[in-house]
Amino acid sequence: MRIRVVIPSITKEYKALGLEQYSPSARPGTEISVTLLDQGPASIESRYDETVATPDIVRKVVEAEKDGVDAVIIDCMADPGLDAAREMVSIPVVGPAETAMHFAAMLSHRFSVVTVLDRLAPLFDRHAAKMGLVERLASVRAVNIPVLELGDTERVVKALIEQSAKAVRVDGAHLIVFGCTGMVGLAGDVKKGLEDQGILDVPVIDPAILAVKIAEALVDTGLSHSKRTYPHPPEKEIVGY
Amino acid sequence: MRIRVVIPSITKEYKALGLEQYSPSARPGTEISVTLLDQGPASIESRYDETVATPDIVRKVVEAEKDGVDAVIIDCMADPGLDAAREMVSIPVVGPAETAMHFAAMLSHRFSVVTVLDRLAPLFDRHAAKMGLVERLASVRAVNIPVLELGDTERVVKALIEQSAKAVRVDGAHLIVFGCTGMVGLAGDVKKGLEDQGILDVPVIDPAILAVKIAEALVDTGLSHSKRTYPHPPEKEIVGY
Amino acid sequence: MRIRVVIPSITKEYKALGLEQYSPSARPGTEISVTLLDQGPASIESRYDETVATPDIVRKVVEAEKDGVDAVIIDCMADPGLDAAREMVSIPVVGPAETAMHFAAMLSHRFSVVTVLDRLAPLFDRHAAKMGLVERLASVRAVNIPVLELGDTERVVKALIEQSAKAVRVDGAHLIVFGCTGMVGLAGDVKKGLEDQGILDVPVIDPAILAVKIAEALVDTGLSHSKRTYPHPPEKEIVGY
Amino acid sequence: MRIRVVIPSITKEYKALGLEQYSPSARPGTEISVTLLDQGPASIESRYDETVATPDIVRKVVEAEKDGVDAVIIDCMADPGLDAAREMVSIPVVGPAETAMHFAAMLSHRFSVVTVLDRLAPLFDRHAAKMGLVERLASVRAVNIPVLELGDTERVVKALIEQSAKAVRVDGAHLIVFGCTGMVGLAGDVKKGLEDQGILDVPVIDPAILAVKIAEALVDTGLSHSKRTYPHPPEKEIVGY
Amino acid sequence: MRIRVVIPSITKEYKALGLEQYSPSARPGTEISVTLLDQGPASIESRYDETVATPDIVRKVVEAEKDGVDAVIIDCMADPGLDAAREMVSIPVVGPAETAMHFAAMLSHRFSVVTVLDRLAPLFDRHAAKMGLVERLASVRAVNIPVLELGDTERVVKALIEQSAKAVRVDGAHLIVFGCTGMVGLAGDVKKGLEDQGILDVPVIDPAILAVKIAEALVDTGLSHSKRTYPHPPEKEIVGY
Amino acid sequence: MRIRVVIPSITKEYKALGLEQYSPSARPGTEISVTLLDQGPASIESRYDETVATPDIVRKVVEAEKDGVDAVIIDCMADPGLDAAREMVSIPVVGPAETAMHFAAMLSHRFSVVTVLDRLAPLFDRHAAKMGLVERLASVRAVNIPVLELGDTERVVKALIEQSAKAVRVDGAHLIVFGCTGMVGLAGDVKKGLEDQGILDVPVIDPAILAVKIAEALVDTGLSHSKRTYPHPPEKEIVGY
Repeated sequence: MRIRVVIPSITKEYKALGLEQYSPSARPGTEISVTLLDQGPASIESRYDETVATPDIVRKVVEAEKDGVDAVIIDCMADPGLDAAREMVSIPVVGPAETAMHFAAMLSHRFSVVTVLDRLAPLFDRHAAKMGLVERLASVRAVNIPVLELGDTERVVKALIEQSAKAVRVDGAHLIVFGCTGMVGLAGDVKKGLEDQGILDVPVIDPAILAVKIAEALVDTGLSHSKRTYPHPPEKEIVGY
Repeated sequence: MRIRVVIPSITKEYKALGLEQYSPSARPGTEISVTLLDQGPASIESRYDETVATPDIVRKVVEAEKDGVDAVIIDCMADPGLDAAREMVSIPVVGPAETAMHFAAMLSHRFSVVTVLDRLAPLFDRHAAKMGLVERLASVRAVNIPVLELGDTERVVKALIEQSAKAVRVDGAHLIVFGCTGMVGLAGDVKKGLEDQGILDVPVIDPAILAVKIAEALVDTGLSHSKRTYPHPPEKEIVGY
Repeated sequence: MRIRVVIPSITKEYKALGLEQYSPSARPGTEISVTLLDQGPASIESRYDETVATPDIVRKVVEAEKDGVDAVIIDCMADPGLDAAREMVSIPVVGPAETAMHFAAMLSHRFSVVTVLDRLAPLFDRHAAKMGLVERLASVRAVNIPVLELGDTERVVKALIEQSAKAVRVDGAHLIVFGCTGMVGLAGDVKKGLEDQGILDVPVIDPAILAVKIAEALVDTGLSHSKRTYPHPPEKEIVGY
Repeated sequence: MRIRVVIPSITKEYKALGLEQYSPSARPGTEISVTLLDQGPASIESRYDETVATPDIVRKVVEAEKDGVDAVIIDCMADPGLDAAREMVSIPVVGPAETAMHFAAMLSHRFSVVTVLDRLAPLFDRHAAKMGLVERLASVRAVNIPVLELGDTERVVKALIEQSAKAVRVDGAHLIVFGCTGMVGLAGDVKKGLEDQGILDVPVIDPAILAVKIAEALVDTGLSHSKRTYPHPPEKEIVGY
Repeated sequence: MRIRVVIPSITKEYKALGLEQYSPSARPGTEISVTLLDQGPASIESRYDETVATPDIVRKVVEAEKDGVDAVIIDCMADPGLDAAREMVSIPVVGPAETAMHFAAMLSHRFSVVTVLDRLAPLFDRHAAKMGLVERLASVRAVNIPVLELGDTERVVKALIEQSAKAVRVDGAHLIVFGCTGMVGLAGDVKKGLEDQGILDVPVIDPAILAVKIAEALVDTGLSHSKRTYPHPPEKEIVGY
Repeated sequence: MRIRVVIPSITKEYKALGLEQYSPSARPGTEISVTLLDQGPASIESRYDETVATPDIVRKVVEAEKDGVDAVIIDCMADPGLDAAREMVSIPVVGPAETAMHFAAMLSHRFSVVTVLDRLAPLFDRHAAKMGLVERLASVRAVNIPVLELGDTERVVKALIEQSAKAVRVDGAHLIVFGCTGMVGLAGDVKKGLEDQGILDVPVIDPAILAVKIAEALVDTGLSHSKRTYPHPPEKEIVGY
C-alpha cells in the first residue's frame, strides 16, 4: 500500500523530516511518500495561511491519485482543503483533526486539544461543532510556540506536559489530542511526563500517526468518502490554477 | 460611504452587471464599486471552486481596504474567504449567506434556501450548523440551473417560484432565502409569483441586496468584526501569493 | 423614513431622553419619534415587569403602524412583546436583543452580555437558546446597578468597563454586548476603557443604536417578519384591553 | 390539599365546566377551585391573546397564594405567565405544557402534540426547544377547531383520533399529547379510537389531568420552583396593574 | 395502590431500611413493598456494577407486575435496567434519575447533581445528554463517600451541604439534586444547612421520594410508558436467565 | 496481533461462521479468535436481550485480556457492554456501532442505517445522540428479517438493496451503514445492487469488517480507551457473577 503525506508547507527541510517522522508508523508493506507545496506558506497558523495553502494542497492530492497512491494524508490539524480535495479524487483523503477528534470521542468522555498558539482555539471549537463533539471538547490549550519553532523538542515537550496536566486537572480532560501535526512523535514523552506527575490514566493521541493507521484501515476495507457528498466539480473556466 | 463588492469570478461581463444590479440598493451617498478576480473560477459551485477563488478574494479585500473603502461584500452565498479576509483587514467584510440566514431566523420561525444546484445543499446545512440555525432551516431546494445560466431570467424566476412554493407547502417554510447572489433582483418577481399562487405571507430575502444594507449599517455604527476572533496572521514566508 | 421607539416605561423623563439618545444614530432623512407606556412599569427587570409592560407595548406598536411610521423598535433587551406585536402589524418590529445577539455572533467567535442585574442572566441564556447561540455566549455579567440609576453615567461606565474586561480576560469573550438599552451611548467610553487596559481588539455593541440601523435596513429592503410565522390573531372577545 | 386552577379566559361558563372537568382527577382530600380572568381574552390562540391574558393570570396566582391554596395550575398549553407568576409566589405553579412534554419525553422515544390550530405549531416547537426536547417532538398537528368550539365533543374526538393516527403512522409518534387543555377528559375516547384502528401501544397524555397529579406530587414533597431562578421582582412604580 | 421498590443490591439490611425510608413518603392508601436482588452487587458505583445488577432488576420488575403491584421504582440514580424492564412489563417503571432531572429542569434554570463518587460524573452528563438537559446541568459534584458508607449520616449531610453550597456559589446552580438514592431522607437537613449559610432560595430534590410521588401520579392517571417505544422482546432461546 | 471477537450469542454454529466471516478481513499477522457466550440470548434484538447478554460479554472480554489478546470486538450493533467491559480491561474494546457511525460521519454528509427490525430504530437514534451525530443520521430503515434468519443471504441482500436505495432516494442518505453485524460480508453485493439501480456514489460500511481494521489501528498505535473515563470498578461483594 502506498500513502502520500501532503505537508502543506514550502519549507524544504520538512520533506526529509516528514518522511523520517511518518515512516516508523507505517506497517510492513505500507510505503510512505511525502510531498511539499510549491506555492503556499511556510506553516499554517491562520485562516489566511490555510487560504494560500489550499490550492496547492488540492493539486498535490490530485497528483497523488494520478501517481497511483492508495490514500492521502493532509498533514495539518486545520484539515485544510479536505473537502475540496475529496471532490477532486476518489481515493481516501484523511484529515488528522477529523480522525483524531472522532477517536478522542470514542475513547474518552471528554478530551482537550493542546495546540501551538492561542489564536487557533476557535479553529478547534469550529471543528468540534462541525463534528458534533462540542460537549466532548473539555478545552483548547496552547503551548504558544510557533510551528516553525517546534524543532526545539525539549521546550515543546515540557510545554505540552504542562498544558496537558492543566487540561486534565483544571479542565477535566480524560484524553489529550495534539493540536498540531508538527508535534508528531512526542506522545510517548508527554504520556511519560503526565505519569511522572501521577496522571496515569490519560491517553495522548498523536494525530499524525493515527492518520496513517486510518489511511491503512480505509484502504484495507476499500472505503472512501461518499462521492454523493463530494461530487466532482462542474467543468468551467478557471484562471491561474 | 464607499462599499466594494468583490465578485468571486473571472467572468468579465459580471463587472458591469454587478454594478448595475447592486447600485440601486445603495442609499444616497453610498458609492458601490465592483471588482472581479484576476485569478480564479468563472463561478463558484463546489468546494474546489471556492478554493481557487479564495486567495484572490482576500487580495481584493485587502486592496479595498487600501483603497479606503468603508466595507466589503463578498458576492457569493458560500461566503468564500470570509474568515481569512477578516484576519487581513479591519473594515467590515460582509458575507451574504451569513447575514441572510441570520435575518431569516430573526424574521421567521423556519426558512428555506432555494439555490442553483442540488449539490450545494450540504453547504447550506453546514452554514446553518455553524450559525446555530439547524432547527430553523426547513429545507434546501435547487432550481438546477448553473450560475452561468442565471442570465435566462424568465426560466430562473419560474423555477424559483416553483421551488419556493414547494418549500412553503411541502417543507413548511415561512420565508425564502435565495441561495445564490446571482439571483439578485428577482425577489419581487418571486414574491409576486407566490402571491399569484395564494401564498401571501412569505417574505423573500435577496441576500445580495441585504448585504449592502448591512454593510451600510455596520459602517454607520462603526462596528466591525472582532480582531480577537480574527487576529492578523503571523508574518511568515509565503510563495506565490 | 419614520421610526418609532417604544420605551416600555411610564417614566416621563425617558421621552425626551430617549429622543436625545436615539436621534443622533438616525441617518439623514430618518425621523425618530419616541413613545412611552400609559400603563406599565417604571422599568423592566423581571418577567413580571415584562408582563405588565407588554399589553401597552403592543398597543403602542399598533398605534405606530396606524400613524404610518415605517418601523418600530421596542426599547428593551428583554424584547418584550416582540412576538405579539409582530402578529398585530405588518411593519418591521425590531428587538434590540435579537439583533444585537445575532450581530455579535456574526462578528465574533464568542461574546458576553453585560447587563444591569445578576437576576437577568437566565433571560440572556434563554435568548441565546432561542436564537441557537448557546455556544457563542461566553458569559452574562452584571454591573448590579438598577435601570432607574443608569443616569449616573460615570458609575455605570466604570462598572461596564470592569465587567467587560473580566468577560474578556476570565470568560474568553471576543465582543461585548450591552445587556440593557438604558446603556445607550456608552459604547465609545467602554471601548476606550478597555483599550486603556490593553484590550484593543474587542468591539462593543450598543443594541439601541444597532436597532435603529437595522430598522433602517429593513425598511430600505422592504423586508419585514413573515406573517406566516406571525399571523394576525383570530377575532374574539377581549375585556380590558 | 387545595389546588387552584386559573383558567385564562373571561368566558363565564368555563368556571363550572372547569370545576366539573378537573374535579374527578383530584384524589380524595384534594380540593379543586377554579377562577377565571376578570380581564383578558375569551381564549388563547395567539401570542397576542397570551399578552392580554397574562397580567390577570399573575394576579390570580398571587391571589391564590394569599387564599392559602397549596398549588396553582395555569390551564393553558401556552403556559402563559408561568415565569412571571413564579416570581410573585412561592407555592408551586404548574404549566400543563411543561409537565406534559417532559412526561411525554420520559414515557416515549418520540411524541406528537395534537393542538387546535395550525398556527400554534411554532409555539410547541419553541416549548420543545426551551425544554431540550427538539429531537423528541415527532410533529405538531392540529384539528383546526377553535378553542371556543371544543364543546362539540363528537367532532373534536373524531378529529383528534384522525390526527393522532396520522401522527403515529406518518410522523412516527410513539405517544400523543393533547395540545390544548380544552381537550380535557377526551384521552380515553382518543385512545379507544386509536385502538379501533389497530394502534394499541400509544399512550395519550391529557395535560390538564396530569397537571393536577403533578401539583399534588409537588405539594406532597414540599418542592416548588427555585426562587434563585424566579426571584421576587424589585419594587417599583407600576401603573394600571 | 401498591408500589414496589426494587433496590438493586444484595445487601440484606437494605430491605428493612428501604421500607423505613420509603414508607413515610407514600400517601395514605399507597402500600410500599421493597425487594432486593438475589444476584448482583452490594451497590452500584460503576457500569460494571450496573451490568451485573440489571438481569435481576428486570426479573424483579417482572415479578412485581405478576404480583399485581401498580408501579415499580428502580432505586438507583443510574436508572439501571429501566429500558429493558419497560420492554417486559406494562405497569409504570420509574427511574429516579429520569424523574429528578426532568423535575429539576422544570423547577429551575440550572441545577447541580451531588453524587457519591467523582467517577460517576460522566454518568450524569450522559443522563443529561439523553434527556436534552445538557445546558441545564450546572455541574456534577461528589461527596466522595461510597454508597456502603452512606449510613454515616452526619458525615454525609456535612459533605452534601459543603458540595451543594459550592455548586450554588461556584457553579451557579439554582437547585440541587441528590445523585444517589441512598441519600434518601436528607433533603431537609441539607436545605437547612444551605439556609444556615445564607442560601435561602435553592430547592433540594430527593429523587427517591420524588419517584414515589411520580409513581403515584402515573398510576392515578393510568399513564405508563409507550409500548411502541418499549415493545415486548421477541421470543427466543435464552440460557441462564 | 491477536484480536478476539466476542459474539454475544449462545448459538453454537455462530462460532465457526464468525471465524469464517471475520478472518478474511484480518491482515497478515493478525489472528482472529471467536468466542460465544455461555449464558445469554440466541441473538440481540431488544434492550432485554442486551441485559441478559452483557454480564457474559464482559466476562469474555476479561478472559480475552487474560489470554493476552491485543484487542476485543463486541460483535453487535447495540455495542452491548462496551462501557462496562472498558472498565474491566485496559486493552482496546471496539464497538462496531460506535466505529461505523463515526466513520460514516467522517466520510459523508448524511448516512442511513439499515438494520434488521423496525423496533431497533430508537437504538440508533440513541447511538447518534450519544455520539453527537443526530444531524448526520438521515434515517434508520429495517429489512424486517430477524437476526436468526440472516443466513438466507439472497433474501437479505435483496431487502438490503431495496431499503438502501430508499434511504438514498427518499431520505437523502449519502452512505449506508449496516445495522446488524450479522450482515457481515454483504457490502459488496449491496453496493453492486445500488450501482445496478444507477446509484454509483454511495459507500456501504460493513461495521464488522471496519471493527477489525480499527482494532488493528488501535493496537498499532498503542491507543486504548481512557481509564479516567472507564476506571476499574470499586471492589465489592457481587453474588452470581
